[in-house]
Amino acid sequence: MHKLWHFRLCPLSRSIRLALSEGGVAFSLTEERPWEWRPAFLALNPAGELPVLELSEGPVLSGAYAISEFIAEEMTFHPLEQPSHAAPLPLFPGNREDRAEVRRLVDWFNGKMNREVTRELLQEKVYARAKPIPGQTPDADIMRAIRANLRYHMSYIGFLAYQRRWLAGDVMSFADLAAAAHLSTIDYLGEAPWAEHPTTKEWYARMKSRPSMRQLLADRVPGTPPPMHYTDLDF
Amino acid sequence: MHKLWHFRLCPLSRSIRLALSEGGVAFSLTEERPWEWRPAFLALNPAGELPVLELSEGPVLSGAYAISEFIAEEMTFHPLEQPSHAAPLPLFPGNREDRAEVRRLVDWFNGKMNREVTRELLQEKVYARAKPIPGQTPDADIMRAIRANLRYHMSYIGFLAYQRRWLAGDVMSFADLAAAAHLSTIDYLGEAPWAEHPTTKEWYARMKSRPSMRQLLADRVPGTPPPMHYTDLDF
Repeated sequence: MHKLWHFRLCPLSRSIRLALSEGGVAFSLTEERPWEWRPAFLALNPAGELPVLELSEGPVLSGAYAISEFIAEEMTFHPLEQPSHAAPLPLFPGNREDRAEVRRLVDWFNGKMNREVTRELLQEKVYARAKPIPGQTPDADIMRAIRANLRYHMSYIGFLAYQRRWLAGDVMSFADLAAAAHLSTIDYLGEAPWAEHPTTKEWYARMKSRPSMRQLLADRVPGTPPPMHYTDLDF
Repeated sequence: MHKLWHFRLCPLSRSIRLALSEGGVAFSLTEERPWEWRPAFLALNPAGELPVLELSEGPVLSGAYAISEFIAEEMTFHPLEQPSHAAPLPLFPGNREDRAEVRRLVDWFNGKMNREVTRELLQEKVYARAKPIPGQTPDADIMRAIRANLRYHMSYIGFLAYQRRWLAGDVMSFADLAAAAHLSTIDYLGEAPWAEHPTTKEWYARMKSRPSMRQLLADRVPGTPPPMHYTDLDF
């Protein structure tokens, strides 16, 4: 079976877990704490970053970019909620221009939003605490900046969801999976201001009801429980 | 003609300029100062980031990821120095696994190295100075951290270049173009410690001699001249 190295709240790992699950690909999970810089993990991926996918037939794929493009070459998924699209879809659906739009948005979520929100949030609220010598409590100025950035990103997702059926167009794509991965981590940490962003919430409720989301919503970090509404499909 | 929005020292823009030149694709350049957040540019790419490629037939592609994958679907280039590979190569050459290795390294350079070195260096030495209210001189602690990170990245490029003919394998790929783009910016700013990294230097000398590098090496930023050896092929 394929083996995915991940950290349970890592949004990039979550985007790949969603993609594999949507594609019906069986895989096992092995947790890695990237901040420990374990030599055995660095031997697998010298960048020391997650996710890493060890394929059962040998090759090791490092990073959400290489993994998503690799699996996209063969994998398709069934868009359950789209009876008009009965045929399975690729992760990057549509024509060449449509695929560029999916990739622009994947880069937005796994790149820009990660840098401006999710990575920083994890650093402040999870990684700093998990280290052998725990860091301080979250810095108020940093948290304020992260929350301001988050509002901008939630508005942008709402803007896309208002204009289109799915974030990149008429059908679901890896862009939706990446955005849902980030929002699921942010929501776990109790930071998603849903009431201010009804369109984003409506789109996320649709994502949350997909079977691929169940495993993510079941994960818990000891000492950091999620808010009550986290697993609620009617939040 | 296609139009590329770039900033002359932006490494991500440089990686796309190299790819288009290698592929023999004609394009014009329009400079954008991303720190100005011009509304007209944000209308083109709401992320406000470079590069942006406006194709003559209409679509606008935003970001090195979407652009490189888009052009890779049709573009090939001639590996001048590889007579054994007379046929033109794609940007992501080889089989599915080879392509994953190219993408892992593109992510390394355009993601990790950019975040840990190039973006920060530009921020300290170019962007801060270019703003209407100029920033302070580079912060000594930040510069020390950037230089330590840079040594690690130059060593990794040397490690790859020692083991392989080109960074991702036997043939040149977009990974080489991305790495050369970053090193060209770093070298322009006089920060590349070539003497400490002879294998990296030997690989970069090969890249530097390619015709696609000429336009990059000819660029100048007013008030920030490059070091004497910058354009020298025998540096």
